[in-house]
Amino acid sequence: MRIGELSARTGVPAATIKYYVREGLLSGGERRGHNQVEYGEEHVRRLRLVRAMVEVGSVPIAKVREVLTEIEDPRRDLDSTLGVASRALSQHKVPAEEPAAVDVETAKAIVRGRGWNAVPLEHGYVWTLADAIGRLRELGLGDMVDMTGEYARAAEIVAEFDLALLQMRSDRDEILEAMVVGTVLGDAIFEALRRIAQVEVSSRVYPPAQRESVQDEEDSSTGE
Amino acid sequence: MRIGELSARTGVPAATIKYYVREGLLSGGERRGHNQVEYGEEHVRRLRLVRAMVEVGSVPIAKVREVLTEIEDPRRDLDSTLGVASRALSQHKVPAEEPAAVDVETAKAIVRGRGWNAVPLEHGYVWTLADAIGRLRELGLGDMVDMTGEYARAAEIVAEFDLALLQMRSDRDEILEAMVVGTVLGDAIFEALRRIAQVEVSSRVYPPAQRESVQDEEDSSTGE
Repeated sequence: MRIGELSARTGVPAATIKYYVREGLLSGGERRGHNQVEYGEEHVRRLRLVRAMVEVGSVPIAKVREVLTEIEDPRRDLDSTLGVASRALSQHKVPAEEPAAVDVETAKAIVRGRGWNAVPLEHGYVWTLADAIGRLRELGLGDMVDMTGEYARAAEIVAEFDLALLQMRSDRDEILEAMVVGTVLGDAIFEALRRIAQVEVSSRVYPPAQRESVQDEEDSSTGE
Repeated sequence: MRIGELSARTGVPAATIKYYVREGLLSGGERRGHNQVEYGEEHVRRLRLVRAMVEVGSVPIAKVREVLTEIEDPRRDLDSTLGVASRALSQHKVPAEEPAAVDVETAKAIVRGRGWNAVPLEHGYVWTLADAIGRLRELGLGDMVDMTGEYARAAEIVAEFDLALLQMRSDRDEILEAMVVGTVLGDAIFEALRRIAQVEVSSRVYPPAQRESVQDEEDSSTGE
């Protein structure tokens, strides 16, 4: 197909497609004579993958390229790619400073308390967890730390489904793509569901008279 | 305390504190004669709150100001503030275009299927959910939509704890602060726990020989 059709099928403007090709996010089409370039189904698919990262995950172009490079590197094994992509797509930074020992201990206790014995306790995300716990403590919100056990239970439900999805695929490229999409769209879906659930749960907590104003507020912002 | 002590206690450089005051994120200290400005405990607390948003949530300064303005507006009732702050702190954008009708139906079915009957189906996050579902479908990953029921179950666990935390407080300012912190740090904690759980679950799925390389990969990136 020509670039016009590729643009129509993916909703990505032709100028943006050319920009993605220049930036190395998309291979160029096949040249078929003067001023005629042919694109295929693989371009449609790749563009949708790039769009999911850029539009839904707000992933910067440089990060998108990094993730795609990882995906396409045939020397990498599947599970190390999982780690690299998951970190590249993370919305939250790994803390710059070492968290306080007391918070690292709490984080480790949460991980082991959940029966997660295969996870190395030096894992970068254990630090991220410890850092967030330390900030709660500093803000005098230490009681929020108690909730992380429930968060861990919910996280396990989500992770089991993340992995089940990968297992449903056998082709390497399919698995990697599902991983990236699952991380970006899975985060967006979970965030949306959490906010929706908050509205639901708060309707049980707050009296109906007050609830009206929340609904008005939410309604008026639809399509913001 | 002087600005030097405020800086030492919060880990925020004096120049950054002055910048936050200029940007309206922090009230100025009390002037006590020439070149002497006195800060109090409320400045320590506010700076930690701003830091949590900026450093952990990567919330832009303009958004931080927007959230703080909401929090401080005495005319707002609690639950409409909850909606406003939750949207301002959202990592994912509400979709610009109306999602396809078929995806909106799927999203509504997920919400009602979970027994969430108080949530208005015109809620902005139902659109966000529908948008993500549509992208999965376009990418031929429709089977991932089936997992959202499990995601919804996990989201409800998280939301119940989000609200339980608010109920533990009676002071309006405390509730609002807990809401902001709970959203930003709660997101960070959940994301970290999800990644940790993925490592745990993948250790059950992939054979130990392959697992070694994941651990090496993760270990070497600690403190990144």
